[in-house]
Amino acid sequence: MAIESEVKLRDFWVSPFGQRCRIALAEKGVEYEYQEENLSAKSELLLKSNPIHKKIPVLLHGGKPVCESLIILRYIDEVWPGKSSFLPSDPNARAHALFWADYVDRKVYECGTRLWKMSGEALDAAKKEFVEILKTLEAELGDKKYFTGGDVFGLVDIALAPFTSWFYTYEAYSGVRMEEESPKLVKWAERCKERESVAKTLPDPMKVYEFAGSLKKRFGGK
Amino acid sequence: MAIESEVKLRDFWVSPFGQRCRIALAEKGVEYEYQEENLSAKSELLLKSNPIHKKIPVLLHGGKPVCESLIILRYIDEVWPGKSSFLPSDPNARAHALFWADYVDRKVYECGTRLWKMSGEALDAAKKEFVEILKTLEAELGDKKYFTGGDVFGLVDIALAPFTSWFYTYEAYSGVRMEEESPKLVKWAERCKERESVAKTLPDPMKVYEFAGSLKKRFGGK
Repeated sequence: MAIESEVKLRDFWVSPFGQRCRIALAEKGVEYEYQEENLSAKSELLLKSNPIHKKIPVLLHGGKPVCESLIILRYIDEVWPGKSSFLPSDPNARAHALFWADYVDRKVYECGTRLWKMSGEALDAAKKEFVEILKTLEAELGDKKYFTGGDVFGLVDIALAPFTSWFYTYEAYSGVRMEEESPKLVKWAERCKERESVAKTLPDPMKVYEFAGSLKKRFGGK
Repeated sequence: MAIESEVKLRDFWVSPFGQRCRIALAEKGVEYEYQEENLSAKSELLLKSNPIHKKIPVLLHGGKPVCESLIILRYIDEVWPGKSSFLPSDPNARAHALFWADYVDRKVYECGTRLWKMSGEALDAAKKEFVEILKTLEAELGDKKYFTGGDVFGLVDIALAPFTSWFYTYEAYSGVRMEEESPKLVKWAERCKERESVAKTLPDPMKVYEFAGSLKKRFGGK
């Protein structure tokens, strides 16, 4: 029987989706047990906790699982209100933040992955699309300190911040110049890294690069 | 200048995503102006209101746009609390409902579309996948009256209900037998149609079938 207040996170170190949850838990000051999942031999607990997608991250709170990173962030925000919410209180501003978290979810990971996996024409297409994504995010950020609510580091920031430790990998494999294409976004990434929650969560970009390299070698470039 | 309380929905009659919003507005008893969008020549208002995805549905409330159907449903639920919420109050049950709404969003439309668009091996693959989706939804529904909270017609039900008017199209083009594969889901669909909000929103399945046929003819089967 799990203790009602017990918090565990089944995760994988390099996953931007898992890192979101770690940043959110750190922002709220929640103590939890980090459990690294072996993705080549998934645990019984993971398969039982997320039988539909069989994916990390899974948050276990009092033994009850919560799946899907953006849903986990909402859950953390509701259960541990803390000093400030990850979402604005105004319903329109809140819908706006959910829209951008969803945009990050659909676009950045999928296209970013193609930047280091693909070559030739497929890489050219991915680069073009990724630059569009950067410009779109850059325009949305504008001169705000953070995405979500101006001065508040919130849902959109937490959703996007983990990808900043992949920026080096994106550049190295594809030749996309992050700073040239999106200088405000790169400055925002630096501001995020000044936060303890982000600094202690994000891995060294070189380790991410090595990890991507080992995957590419294993599965071959397309 | 838009009136603060003015509600408009830019939509397209056969869109399951737009129908979700219409069902939600009807459930909450919100009066609004329905505006049919011409998807071959999108309006200035649509492009201005949803510049990122350029898609319907868009809810305009006091002139301010809200985009993406599941986000619109959350917005409607927050702004017009009404008799009951679309989501359970318990955070874990709420996360569970969001998980299944997301599942519907990712799986049903995309795979369902392949059922009437594809042929040959691609159709066989879509059929196999769709039966899996039906079985998964069937297991999640179990003996509950509704998906979201047992007796409450909520977010997951509203997200899925519009696809029931596509069931005939799915069957006719692919040969998947909905009732055989998912008898509980078909009974749930009948229960949904007993609600005024659903009955007045969903189009005649034969009109949906004709619409799918005209699209298939125009773009060719793959």
